[in-house]
Amino acid sequence: MTERLTEAERAEELPALAETGWRAVPGRDAIRKIWTFRSFNAAWGFMSRVALVAEKMNHHPEWTNAYRTVDVTLATHDCDGLSGLDVRMAKRMDVLAGAAEVQRDHSEPMERLCGLGGGGNAP
Amino acid sequence: MTERLTEAERAEELPALAETGWRAVPGRDAIRKIWTFRSFNAAWGFMSRVALVAEKMNHHPEWTNAYRTVDVTLATHDCDGLSGLDVRMAKRMDVLAGAAEVQRDHSEPMERLCGLGGGGNAP
Amino acid sequence: MTERLTEAERAEELPALAETGWRAVPGRDAIRKIWTFRSFNAAWGFMSRVALVAEKMNHHPEWTNAYRTVDVTLATHDCDGLSGLDVRMAKRMDVLAGAAEVQRDHSEPMERLCGLGGGGNAP
Amino acid sequence: MTERLTEAERAEELPALAETGWRAVPGRDAIRKIWTFRSFNAAWGFMSRVALVAEKMNHHPEWTNAYRTVDVTLATHDCDGLSGLDVRMAKRMDVLAGAAEVQRDHSEPMERLCGLGGGGNAP
Repeated sequence: MTERLTEAERAEELPALAETGWRAVPGRDAIRKIWTFRSFNAAWGFMSRVALVAEKMNHHPEWTNAYRTVDVTLATHDCDGLSGLDVRMAKRMDVLAGAAEVQRDHSEPMERLCGLGGGGNAP
Repeated sequence: MTERLTEAERAEELPALAETGWRAVPGRDAIRKIWTFRSFNAAWGFMSRVALVAEKMNHHPEWTNAYRTVDVTLATHDCDGLSGLDVRMAKRMDVLAGAAEVQRDHSEPMERLCGLGGGGNAP
Repeated sequence: MTERLTEAERAEELPALAETGWRAVPGRDAIRKIWTFRSFNAAWGFMSRVALVAEKMNHHPEWTNAYRTVDVTLATHDCDGLSGLDVRMAKRMDVLAGAAEVQRDHSEPMERLCGLGGGGNAP
Repeated sequence: MTERLTEAERAEELPALAETGWRAVPGRDAIRKIWTFRSFNAAWGFMSRVALVAEKMNHHPEWTNAYRTVDVTLATHDCDGLSGLDVRMAKRMDVLAGAAEVQRDHSEPMERLCGLGGGGNAP
């Protein structure tokens, strides 16, 4: 069973991801990022590399591709929310996406992430 | 410039696609189909083959993948609606998806397709 | 460290692989199979699925693709010869290749496999 | 029918390709280059992008992959030798391979390319 991120882990990991363009999905404990590549070819090259990572980690993204845009949502089914697997996958994707353009104005800022509880008290 | 399907072409082509599980996207002149494969591996094999077809036709799907599900929407940007390219791509996808399970209860029946005009009069 | 197949394991596993078209690589403790698919598209779909399996198993084929032909050699670097990983990979490939045509007259029959010892006597 | 490169075209195009590491295949009118990527993941990402280009150009490489190495031979079947398609594909691959390491000591220098004839006279 994969564990959900604790508040302490969230405080440590999520700000850096927010910096690179990851955002909170409204109403879910999930994160989302949207890249625009130079071409379908580049978008597909990225997705092909992520697919290998996903299969190896046994942790798969929800992702939408439309021409040269790739819109990714990460969450962990096993724990019904964000886990360490999502953080690892987000970091790998950031490396593999290279210099692709990032859309930053979608979804919600990371502070609004629907996480462990309203009070933000770590257990 | 790619031409939108005429009413005559729609009458000829769309019922067969509806038969295999393609549905009308509410409010758009676009069609959608959702497959569930046996595994991410099978879903990705399908997507890899469709990617080659898309790049060759220079006609790319909007598609979402979540684990072993692939949810595809087809429309043609050039003509802001369905064209012959979408029909060709839909047929190729149907062949490449093989025996994957098809979800049939999403979206709208093909008769409600937001097409050339309310009256259904071909120009 | 991955272990080389014992003579008993070879006697158990290799005849079935020979049946499907796997052959011995002259002078190596390795097996080889050549498929011809219907198109580059089909060959690439196969390779894309095998790539996911390879990365997950951390066991990668040596393979050559020319248009719709895929020529695969399997051996395990860690043990300088055939291991159980090669048998697993060969079986997965046989499933994933589906009905592709198999070239059977290349290389050497499986009995000539350069295995654990010169005499080739199964225990 | 695709035309073989003339001597004038060879003189114009091949030195730049030799510079990036393309070599002549002994006894064939074909060119070859060997890249070593950082990982299988990177090698496969490269191949996935080249596969799209190949299918779009309808011009496919002969290529061998072993873990993180990709060994490519280019020639044009239609004209039994090098054509403009090979030059285009070689240049695209050079861009797509990015900073991968290139092995330069294989095969023959480009001057020994088995081309249109011994005399090197352009028609």
